[in-house]
Amino acid sequence: MRVIKTVPEMSEEAARLRREGKRISFVPTMGNLHEGHLSLMRMAKPLADVLVISIFVNPLQFEPGSDFDAYPRTFEEDLKKSEPVGVDIVFAPMESDLYPEDFQTTVEVAEVSKGLCGDFRPGHFKGVATVVLKLFNIVQPHVAIFGEKDYQQLVVIKRMVKDLNLNVEIRGHPTVREKDGLAMSSRNQYLSPDERRRATRLYRFLKLAKEHYGKGEHKAAPLIRMVKEGLAEDSSIKVEYVSVHDLETLKPVDDIVRPAVMALAVHIGKTRLIDNIFLGNNLTQRRNDRKEQ
Amino acid sequence: MRVIKTVPEMSEEAARLRREGKRISFVPTMGNLHEGHLSLMRMAKPLADVLVISIFVNPLQFEPGSDFDAYPRTFEEDLKKSEPVGVDIVFAPMESDLYPEDFQTTVEVAEVSKGLCGDFRPGHFKGVATVVLKLFNIVQPHVAIFGEKDYQQLVVIKRMVKDLNLNVEIRGHPTVREKDGLAMSSRNQYLSPDERRRATRLYRFLKLAKEHYGKGEHKAAPLIRMVKEGLAEDSSIKVEYVSVHDLETLKPVDDIVRPAVMALAVHIGKTRLIDNIFLGNNLTQRRNDRKEQ
Repeated sequence: MRVIKTVPEMSEEAARLRREGKRISFVPTMGNLHEGHLSLMRMAKPLADVLVISIFVNPLQFEPGSDFDAYPRTFEEDLKKSEPVGVDIVFAPMESDLYPEDFQTTVEVAEVSKGLCGDFRPGHFKGVATVVLKLFNIVQPHVAIFGEKDYQQLVVIKRMVKDLNLNVEIRGHPTVREKDGLAMSSRNQYLSPDERRRATRLYRFLKLAKEHYGKGEHKAAPLIRMVKEGLAEDSSIKVEYVSVHDLETLKPVDDIVRPAVMALAVHIGKTRLIDNIFLGNNLTQRRNDRKEQ
Repeated sequence: MRVIKTVPEMSEEAARLRREGKRISFVPTMGNLHEGHLSLMRMAKPLADVLVISIFVNPLQFEPGSDFDAYPRTFEEDLKKSEPVGVDIVFAPMESDLYPEDFQTTVEVAEVSKGLCGDFRPGHFKGVATVVLKLFNIVQPHVAIFGEKDYQQLVVIKRMVKDLNLNVEIRGHPTVREKDGLAMSSRNQYLSPDERRRATRLYRFLKLAKEHYGKGEHKAAPLIRMVKEGLAEDSSIKVEYVSVHDLETLKPVDDIVRPAVMALAVHIGKTRLIDNIFLGNNLTQRRNDRKEQ
């Protein structure tokens, strides 16, 4: 496993691999690797000759006043976790290398960046799209994997790739969960033991909504109400949004007639958590993903 | 010479050329080719194995109410002019192919898109940056040529390429002029014979300013005043702006101590014309261009 810390070195290595006809798979991360990240890497490994991951806490996607400074940075541990899953290259650029002082170019994916987290984290998806495009141009992957926990992010990236005619295949990986259902996230470690226990409520009520959907409730409003009420039973959980969206366009959905995603964001204490669950035929979505490529 | 009209076909051809180790040079145009375009192509030809040009009138870079519909489209004549200069591939995509209905991603190069034309054509450089990025991703050129007549556009593209870590070399080509000095432009044909005659005043006074600069006038204000007064002698010329800018950052300049560009935009009748001239050591700029690559 090789660690590359500069943009020119990574660009040259990617160009060399491409010239040699090697396939490159890519998992971009902000480090602080957990089992969720490692699952993405295991998925990426057999898809290519060379597995590249990036570790970069991207300032552009943190809103002012958010947890950029507090975001956990655990580089040495990350390296130890990456090696056994078969990572070939860890690309860990410096901030000043990706964003020199006169940097001024951003990418905006307008429609799918609206709603859900987009309404509460202004500029977040612009920051995500911009850094991912930069990383794609540097790493030149054939295929890149993103977790479905950040579902809006996955849709933003897919849309950007289509709209900008990028030659990279985007695959989603199902959300990896703790045994009690909590979606894995670097931000879970901000939770106190008490908050951590309360946080299981998120997935519990998402699953309940999916059950009711499965039993024939295809209206979004009662499903949303059910989840909101379930979360409200715990007064320490502050709901930011619970909503149902078309799986592809992310437009809000009233009647669930096409594959949809129910997504939520809450604050527990000082920690913001998100989660989601697919409603409708997920297999259709998976198949579409493959067809798109 | 091959004409390619779809994105997938062009993408595949570019990928094939890349696999074969071929170098690709690229001149994006909006068609209606004149000697200016052809000079860019002649410059591009010896830089690569395959010369690709694109012909696409990009709706995204026309502001509402501008001349998008009236813009001259002369595809058959363009093909006839391209072949003798050695163009290998003419990429002429359909609008619906580059911008399908759900298209929603744009690129913004913030600072250098401000001032000059950016103040008078809102959204113009966003449209330019977006289509050029798409064309780069489809055509996958090693080197691309842009005319210096649209100097702000050239700076926007260079900045985007740096900021997004694109692996393409951008070269400027000196403005090609008619015998009487008028910068070549597809929009010149909008001019009546009388307006056409009056339009020579633009370059005449830019040259005069450069002469005075050469004689030691290194303050921008008196040079700008001289050009504005010279243009104002003809009441049919409506000045939009005359200004002096740093050649690289495009920031307005008061004292010309580094290479600078004096740029102007005017309306003559219904036609908007732009032109510019370099002040300071152009050779330095040219050398810097090469060093950047």
